[in-house]
Amino acid sequence: MNALEKIISKNEDNKFICVGLDTDINKIPSVIKNEKDAVHFFNKKIIEATKDSVAAYKINFAFYEVLGPYGFELIEKTLQEIPSEIFVIADSKRGDISNTSEMYAKSVFEYFNFDAVTVNPFMGFDSIEPFLKYENKLTFLLGLTSNQGANDFQKLEIKSGEKLFQYIIKKSIEWNYKFKNCGLVFGATNLEELKENIKAFDTLPILLPGVGSQGGSFDDVVKLFKSFHRKNFLINLSRSIIYKDQSLNFDVAARLEIIKLNNIANQIFSD
Amino acid sequence: MNALEKIISKNEDNKFICVGLDTDINKIPSVIKNEKDAVHFFNKKIIEATKDSVAAYKINFAFYEVLGPYGFELIEKTLQEIPSEIFVIADSKRGDISNTSEMYAKSVFEYFNFDAVTVNPFMGFDSIEPFLKYENKLTFLLGLTSNQGANDFQKLEIKSGEKLFQYIIKKSIEWNYKFKNCGLVFGATNLEELKENIKAFDTLPILLPGVGSQGGSFDDVVKLFKSFHRKNFLINLSRSIIYKDQSLNFDVAARLEIIKLNNIANQIFSD
Repeated sequence: MNALEKIISKNEDNKFICVGLDTDINKIPSVIKNEKDAVHFFNKKIIEATKDSVAAYKINFAFYEVLGPYGFELIEKTLQEIPSEIFVIADSKRGDISNTSEMYAKSVFEYFNFDAVTVNPFMGFDSIEPFLKYENKLTFLLGLTSNQGANDFQKLEIKSGEKLFQYIIKKSIEWNYKFKNCGLVFGATNLEELKENIKAFDTLPILLPGVGSQGGSFDDVVKLFKSFHRKNFLINLSRSIIYKDQSLNFDVAARLEIIKLNNIANQIFSD
Repeated sequence: MNALEKIISKNEDNKFICVGLDTDINKIPSVIKNEKDAVHFFNKKIIEATKDSVAAYKINFAFYEVLGPYGFELIEKTLQEIPSEIFVIADSKRGDISNTSEMYAKSVFEYFNFDAVTVNPFMGFDSIEPFLKYENKLTFLLGLTSNQGANDFQKLEIKSGEKLFQYIIKKSIEWNYKFKNCGLVFGATNLEELKENIKAFDTLPILLPGVGSQGGSFDDVVKLFKSFHRKNFLINLSRSIIYKDQSLNFDVAARLEIIKLNNIANQIFSD
């Protein structure tokens, strides 16, 4: 299965949740902080408890880079815990001039062997193409992000009358015609905004941050995608899942939360 | 000395060159490829030969990340070779939602202890602020990059009639009023473009890629900055310095090239 097929197969199985492993040693349950390799212990437990219920895992590179080389080792070790049929996303927001982007692409797709990556499109096509050249992988371009700062540049109106992020979405669709492996990141904090733009996504797979701790509603997002008969999306949940419980039962709590949400999604899609 | 003082002291000493350590095992002289830790050996030799002539070194993270955890170790080991008075830039083009940018900032400024970082501004102020909070460090925001893809989004005309990159420069100046530690990346491939925009940079330190292998002229860039009486800029040169010579004398060749360019800059500033 290539990356796109992996997402679709999970969605067809009514699994839409991507668990963000934004693991911060200062936020994991204090009872496990003194474990050897505590971050790895935590990730392993979360994965073991949730792997049969999730569609994907997303590794937020920042939380590992802060630990230097050891952090990169933790990424490798975490990936080893994830069954190969589950979709894994390198959330690293990379992008640079072409010869540099080639190296970033090689890092996430060859060295670490992720299925997908998040790429910041600001530097334009030649900064993105080295990722797209990996035909069995997926490259999620940032369309509209879920943070306050999305207002600063992404929502600027450009001369054509559309917003910058809407123009980026159009370009992504254009680039996707050639490579068939482009996806979009679109913040789901504001449902109206998602509703207004969902048609423009065409058939591109969508990664949706902004639900959970950042304020977006899981149910509403699922209902919206259902109403458009779309089954190629991932709702990312990080803090609201992995830090759901601060006891030794954090893994079970994470699992139960996902099962609850899966049931909601199932119900919505079968209505 | 904080980061800004370091740049200024080097410029006052007529040193304007930043050497980009984009070290690729496939491009270093074949005679040293079989050295143990060949990339480190190469960087060490380049640094030893050039450290009294350069203003700064810039580490392009992609070329190290491609090697996984070992690559991050190489960054640490390379930094150890650089004297503390020389300015060191983490060229990592990071940027994400605030709690994630905090981790990226902590990684480059605390774990690795760089003086400066390059940040992609696309996600807006809250993605940049965690970097700016390090008051003794410098954060270079991407204004206009030196690649072809800069045309795709950075040069779009926005509603106000200016180009997106010009608006980003204005915002950078606004943010700099508070933190006094903002810089700009501005591609020097096209001299006319640089000339048209140099006044808008205000007093922000400028990192200039695009000279050398990418086509921009060193002499012209120095003359332009001289004509504006500006001494807070760094001209980045990577491939044209570090791969100048493919023999065992690569380090001496790099040194001679920098001395030649320093002499040109000196001549221009004393004319």
